Amino acid sequence: MRAVGFDGEHRGMVEKADLMNRKSPSIYVSAALDAAANDAFLAGVGDAHVIWPPAGAAVGVLGRGKPDPQMASADIVFGQPDVGQVASTQRIAWVQLTSAGYTAYDRPDVRAAFQARGATLTKSSMVYDDPCALHVLAFMCSHARQLPGAFADQSGAREWPQTPLRARSGLLRGETVVILGYGAIGRRLVQLLAPLHMRVSGIRRTVVGDEGVPTHAFESTGATQALAEADHVINILPASEATEGYFDERSFGALKRGAVFYNIGRGTTVDQQALVSSLHTGHLAAAYLDVTQPEPLPPTHALWTAPNCFITPHTAGGHATELSRLVAHFLDNLHRFRAGSPLLDRVF
Amino acid sequence: MRAVGFDGEHRGMVEKADLMNRKSPSIYVSAALDAAANDAFLAGVGDAHVIWPPAGAAVGVLGRGKPDPQMASADIVFGQPDVGQVASTQRIAWVQLTSAGYTAYDRPDVRAAFQARGATLTKSSMVYDDPCALHVLAFMCSHARQLPGAFADQSGAREWPQTPLRARSGLLRGETVVILGYGAIGRRLVQLLAPLHMRVSGIRRTVVGDEGVPTHAFESTGATQALAEADHVINILPASEATEGYFDERSFGALKRGAVFYNIGRGTTVDQQALVSSLHTGHLAAAYLDVTQPEPLPPTHALWTAPNCFITPHTAGGHATELSRLVAHFLDNLHRFRAGSPLLDRVF
Repeated sequence: MRAVGFDGEHRGMVEKADLMNRKSPSIYVSAALDAAANDAFLAGVGDAHVIWPPAGAAVGVLGRGKPDPQMASADIVFGQPDVGQVASTQRIAWVQLTSAGYTAYDRPDVRAAFQARGATLTKSSMVYDDPCALHVLAFMCSHARQLPGAFADQSGAREWPQTPLRARSGLLRGETVVILGYGAIGRRLVQLLAPLHMRVSGIRRTVVGDEGVPTHAFESTGATQALAEADHVINILPASEATEGYFDERSFGALKRGAVFYNIGRGTTVDQQALVSSLHTGHLAAAYLDVTQPEPLPPTHALWTAPNCFITPHTAGGHATELSRLVAHFLDNLHRFRAGSPLLDRVF
Repeated sequence: MRAVGFDGEHRGMVEKADLMNRKSPSIYVSAALDAAANDAFLAGVGDAHVIWPPAGAAVGVLGRGKPDPQMASADIVFGQPDVGQVASTQRIAWVQLTSAGYTAYDRPDVRAAFQARGATLTKSSMVYDDPCALHVLAFMCSHARQLPGAFADQSGAREWPQTPLRARSGLLRGETVVILGYGAIGRRLVQLLAPLHMRVSGIRRTVVGDEGVPTHAFESTGATQALAEADHVINILPASEATEGYFDERSFGALKRGAVFYNIGRGTTVDQQALVSSLHTGHLAAAYLDVTQPEPLPPTHALWTAPNCFITPHTAGGHATELSRLVAHFLDNLHRFRAGSPLLDRVF
């Protein structure tokens, strides 16, 4: 059993306990796994003690687990656990979320509680960078080649709209891309776009200098100018107070007429009525959305029928091997945890 | 005026005449150009004499011009002229097609007539490599990210099919691609696919050794094996007697169960009833077709409603700047023609 520390005074004791518990930890798994991922998990955790939630209580990456008294005896939690419970359960030394997003866990009280007992929160961004970047590439290529128009004709009148679609089709070459919320997904997207010879820049909260493309600080003059000149605006902003409703009438109006807007961040970062208006006036040539507010988007919502608005149901991160890759990422970090090495995808 | 040569005996005379006519040639333009392309054309041809067809007789890249008596005084033809007329018009020293395909012009009698008088046929593949390769990338990414299913839900029930679409979505990484009819489009596609870390091979009539990916001769044992192992089969075969109906019940059956079939070559290379069957049985996971037989595909054709069959109306080569790029490619070759240099995109 490990000692419990509530604050700075007990840190030394907690860290000592940490080292003991790293050898044979108890792992609470709130993530819903399929058979293959489950087998890989059990094979990978070795002699660790695994605690499963009650039948039917495991949740997917976009779900949220309910409190469970069993979690009190866990050293490690893997999944989407109840935020209040992981904050208050003193034994928990490390929580790995199955999501890339962590907004619900990023609260001052949770940070303080984790810091007080030397606990760590990690996320699973590395599992989702690749599918999310590919999703954006799919959106961009589909737009360039006018696939939605062709597929709509196929399910409709079958008029073979060859001439208008060819005239609206493009090459992407030389066009300008701005990635807002430049991070790991943006970095991967830059790799995918490299052979297309586009002009790519990034916007992020803190410019580090290792971005690989010209990058501006969020809301800087450079950022404003980059947005005003972009043919393609890729929104990967996370949900936060600072980003809520960031894309409103004013910021859509500041984009170049004919720009294409993509959102794979969070629906809350967009004033959706302003987006609908920008599509109706033709100020935006098109919008490709993987996230909306709310989700699912109600069938009668105006976004569904706004001109040139194309929606995928928050599938950008999904992939057939998602659960196996989430487990592999967890096991990689578990190995590091046991060895006392720094964990990957650390939030705090 | 130039001398006329019917066969090898007169070659010396023809070549001499060629050199004279290169300086200030007469150019017959059967290509339908827009205002911008027309201006660029006139600015680029300098003092050449330009002959335009009768009003309304100019044709697009997928059309075919009618015979026109004015062509008798042309040294050069640019467009999609009547094949019999360019074969028999002795004065014509060079024909540049606006298409990448040239099947209708590749006849023994036309080759013989061109050879007899030292004339050259060129095509415009270099204009279409980029959009065609991008179109295939758009198909592949759309399939990986299940965009057609999302867009169908959007125009239908709006049920937000997040779970099934995420489970069917993929990363492309590590999957196998075979490019059948490996040439300039295939080469460009290899560049576009490079960051996706797929396993790509080619199949072509004559393996040169400079393909950049493992390449097998058409119908060799290696080709058969590559097709049997491919997750993605990209058909870029041209129309010819050798390729007609190449993809029939037997060759679809020889593909791996669950393979995805793409066709941006010609519709005639596919037995479409066999394709429909392979989709209905689920042997093929999906088909993405830019070409069909006939075109337009009649609204009642079974391909439109075959499971997981997605059709674009022969738009793969199209792009907003297509006419300007066709003219730029022609002017590049005109410069070479006048200088007596080898022409680009030469057929024979």
